Amino acid sequence: MKYPNGKRSANAKKFSAPKQQKKTTFSNRGMTLEEDISLTNKYYLDSQIAVVHKKPTPVQIVNVDYPKRSAAVIKEAYFKQASTTDFNGVYRGKYIDFEAKETRNKTSFPLSNVHQHQIDHMKAVDQQGGICFMIIKFAPLEEVYLLPSKQLFIFWDEQWKGGRKSIPYAFIKKEGYHIPFHFQARVDYAAALDKLISELEEN
Amino acid sequence: MKYPNGKRSANAKKFSAPKQQKKTTFSNRGMTLEEDISLTNKYYLDSQIAVVHKKPTPVQIVNVDYPKRSAAVIKEAYFKQASTTDFNGVYRGKYIDFEAKETRNKTSFPLSNVHQHQIDHMKAVDQQGGICFMIIKFAPLEEVYLLPSKQLFIFWDEQWKGGRKSIPYAFIKKEGYHIPFHFQARVDYAAALDKLISELEEN
Repeated sequence: MKYPNGKRSANAKKFSAPKQQKKTTFSNRGMTLEEDISLTNKYYLDSQIAVVHKKPTPVQIVNVDYPKRSAAVIKEAYFKQASTTDFNGVYRGKYIDFEAKETRNKTSFPLSNVHQHQIDHMKAVDQQGGICFMIIKFAPLEEVYLLPSKQLFIFWDEQWKGGRKSIPYAFIKKEGYHIPFHFQARVDYAAALDKLISELEEN
Repeated sequence: MKYPNGKRSANAKKFSAPKQQKKTTFSNRGMTLEEDISLTNKYYLDSQIAVVHKKPTPVQIVNVDYPKRSAAVIKEAYFKQASTTDFNGVYRGKYIDFEAKETRNKTSFPLSNVHQHQIDHMKAVDQQGGICFMIIKFAPLEEVYLLPSKQLFIFWDEQWKGGRKSIPYAFIKKEGYHIPFHFQARVDYAAALDKLISELEEN
């Protein structure tokens, strides 16, 4: 009963990833950064290290079918603009909030990967004393970094004043925190977060 | 192009509320608790009091149409079980996490309004040092309370050992924190939260 006329519409295709097509990465691990983070979060939850979840993709539901004796089927819905970042949760009593992005660049992270609403949200969280950052993966280099929001804001704000439209790899390597790959925690950001938290507490 | 055959399926109806039919409340204010909390959160965000968002309803997307020159249309999707509570965010640097429920009872809050996965999530957050609670509205009384998770857990765990299946109104009134109605912050939980936080810090 899922396809009443027995076929899908001409334009229909199997849905894979919520917002973007799954990119071919050069990683031999074969998973997207987001999938790796979700697995890490599951490990953190099971091990009582942190409680962090990915927010569901926001969807505007317009039309729902309630067939007898089976689950409700959403027949018409649209993707909505998110008003927050993708991940948030609690770590060592602290509110943490982040966005994850991967780039195929080797020398810089293009700011076009970030959206104004994500910056606005991060600034609001920052003002409230939460801990915000980005997890950035340079796919060709197989390197992942945690970049604190404060560093991101500098480049974001400067780009409107004639600044560059990307953050240099060298800057991220210097000012960010390298995140190692571990088998159980594929994007093991907890140690990087410990360093960020102790730096924030020093200031 | 939204309805290729020009009509909706026989069982289709306009979708209103994500999880449950909007209940008739006895409130002359005419809004659900969830709507009131969302307005409050917007006021808190605009006034830099807190950053709290409702999580989107989780949906399993199966089939998406990408028509030329217009927005992607989700043609088949299903409601998924949430793995967390509905609201979370940051307040005064602290991670807060809560579920909101209204009841038409006057003398107790039935535990059937709460789900095991919500309790599991709250316990994990609690263990991580986050602040968890429920906002409970007794609709006929027009009274709203913040009940700390610890009190909720007591009744939740006891019900499986022959305990009662509901939390008495008198208990919630005594152990919870009354939340007043304000015009701009319709469920003005910040002051109740201040009291909870100072009690937690005393212990």
